[in-house]
Amino acid sequence: MRDRLLATEKVKAIDWRDGTLFLLDQRVLPFEQTWIACTDVSGVAEAIRSMQVRGASAIGIAAAYGMVLAVRARIAEGSDWYAALEEDFALLADARPTAAHLFWALNRMHDRLDRLKDNADPVATLEAEAVAIHESDREANLTMAQLGVDVIRRHQGNAQAILTHCNAGALATGGFGTALGVIRGAFLEGMVERVYVNETRPWLQGSRLTAWELLNEEIPVILNADSAAAHILKAKGITWVIVGADRIAANGDVASKIGTYQLAVNAMHHGVRFMVVAPSSTIDMHTASGEDIPLEERDGDELLAVGSVRVGADVEVFNPVFDVTPADLIDVIVTEKGIVERPDTAKLAQLMCRKRLH
Amino acid sequence: MRDRLLATEKVKAIDWRDGTLFLLDQRVLPFEQTWIACTDVSGVAEAIRSMQVRGASAIGIAAAYGMVLAVRARIAEGSDWYAALEEDFALLADARPTAAHLFWALNRMHDRLDRLKDNADPVATLEAEAVAIHESDREANLTMAQLGVDVIRRHQGNAQAILTHCNAGALATGGFGTALGVIRGAFLEGMVERVYVNETRPWLQGSRLTAWELLNEEIPVILNADSAAAHILKAKGITWVIVGADRIAANGDVASKIGTYQLAVNAMHHGVRFMVVAPSSTIDMHTASGEDIPLEERDGDELLAVGSVRVGADVEVFNPVFDVTPADLIDVIVTEKGIVERPDTAKLAQLMCRKRLH
Repeated sequence: MRDRLLATEKVKAIDWRDGTLFLLDQRVLPFEQTWIACTDVSGVAEAIRSMQVRGASAIGIAAAYGMVLAVRARIAEGSDWYAALEEDFALLADARPTAAHLFWALNRMHDRLDRLKDNADPVATLEAEAVAIHESDREANLTMAQLGVDVIRRHQGNAQAILTHCNAGALATGGFGTALGVIRGAFLEGMVERVYVNETRPWLQGSRLTAWELLNEEIPVILNADSAAAHILKAKGITWVIVGADRIAANGDVASKIGTYQLAVNAMHHGVRFMVVAPSSTIDMHTASGEDIPLEERDGDELLAVGSVRVGADVEVFNPVFDVTPADLIDVIVTEKGIVERPDTAKLAQLMCRKRLH
Repeated sequence: MRDRLLATEKVKAIDWRDGTLFLLDQRVLPFEQTWIACTDVSGVAEAIRSMQVRGASAIGIAAAYGMVLAVRARIAEGSDWYAALEEDFALLADARPTAAHLFWALNRMHDRLDRLKDNADPVATLEAEAVAIHESDREANLTMAQLGVDVIRRHQGNAQAILTHCNAGALATGGFGTALGVIRGAFLEGMVERVYVNETRPWLQGSRLTAWELLNEEIPVILNADSAAAHILKAKGITWVIVGADRIAANGDVASKIGTYQLAVNAMHHGVRFMVVAPSSTIDMHTASGEDIPLEERDGDELLAVGSVRVGADVEVFNPVFDVTPADLIDVIVTEKGIVERPDTAKLAQLMCRKRLH
């Protein structure tokens, strides 16, 4: 399946070329395909904050490249570049609070820096590390797709209706996606009849990004309002809800796009299986449970305006963009290290002890 | 409370004046307050179809006035005006399929016509009947507000956080609302600390209409994405979800705005009480259960565009605008005839036997 999956790759969101980071601007997709060139760390931090690049894995990868730009600039400035870099790490770490992959990637870059040999070139070394993070994310997507497809097949191997929320696809990762990677793999194996996509207010990752990705690959896609999900679970024979994750606590609680929790409660109510697909870098063993995960709140204008068009009365807005799905609502977490059914603290600890498969 | 409630009336959506039906165009609220003048039945049918007027009660009232315009025109045409009116009844009945109040109002107008005495003026008689339907809806709102407030007080009388979906307010009725009527009454009685309002995609009845109504009356309102409701139920101490209804089946199943079902499942999961407020004309004793209620599907462009701005990839859309909440997820149905706790067929049959209170 690996080769067939790789052959379906059509979209990429992150491109590192000649020492510049290019990001496909996700604010204007699918209507415009605009690449933004980032040449310094503040540009990368702003791209993450403003969601020019979004998706747990993608912002981690972008941040890793951001540190390459940072080290290059700090060395050019002279003085104590190593100490000065802490400011750049902090700038990127503060860009968004919820996704674990961002902090994981920054920690990995920091570790690599700390292990730097005296005669090594810091820029070349960090560049190689960032490229490795990017490449390993792509590999993890491939492995997760295979593992997730195996889980689906084990329950039933016919063509099924699947529902997804937000965008956990090529645009959110360094490869072709986590949740959408599994869906792509299942489609290749003849196990996807159609995919229902929640539009995912307020940012419309579903209608702008996921629908566009699936359309490009001719996977049958039907868009619906987030509010229609329960009716669809009941009336349209959905067998799986498949979503990505932004941070997974040590006990298996999952922080993901706002609405994932609501969907998981409804999946449980309707006896529909619920799958979370995320690389192991999403698992934060230092966070005991979902209650300890910081949940980002964004500007109310995300609800009150679409572009320059006002769409709501000018009132106070509560706009949390992530929520926590408790482990006991999740049937299976798929990572590149393996799968965890009915996740709990012991099972996740066991998973995270294993040697990485790639 | 009656007088204090009446004193809060600020918005009306339907005005019958000098033989013309004026409708406040709900497509452009809250940004423009435009009144549309309907002088014939086809204009009224189009206003209902295109949601210039919306809300279960409001479309019933508009249709009743539409029949006044129809009978006036048919008599002016001469020939067999009584037979020709059947076409007008059908035109209005076909405008939207789900809300029972539309059919109830048309049936009531038809019955009145059938009881017409030989020497009576058909136009004046039907006009009086339409005005009576309009007035009785306003009275029903007042009674329901009182009954709903009593239910809330019985559980706890302090200031609470309430969540609502869609718009069941002044804009949806002939008075100041069903669900919002109860919320207004509870606010006057000091039992509302704040109201969370689901924005209600795709048509944004929450952010455009409900938020605007509450803002106008200085009731503390916080707007949220529909997807945030479960997180709010869990984190924000909500004690009641209060919604309106478009049709209630004989067994207590409730057809209401898409997303109501999803919300009811989540209210049950979180132990939050769920109240449906609707006049008894919403109860359709000829429909055995929710499975028999026709659920309207509207154009996919409601999700793919906001005004002239495209907001989603051009894919197939499933856009059901109502869903069914099973009776067993509902704590109480409040009507002007009385309340029904844990509704079922026997209790609704008993309610509908009672003499009308107004």
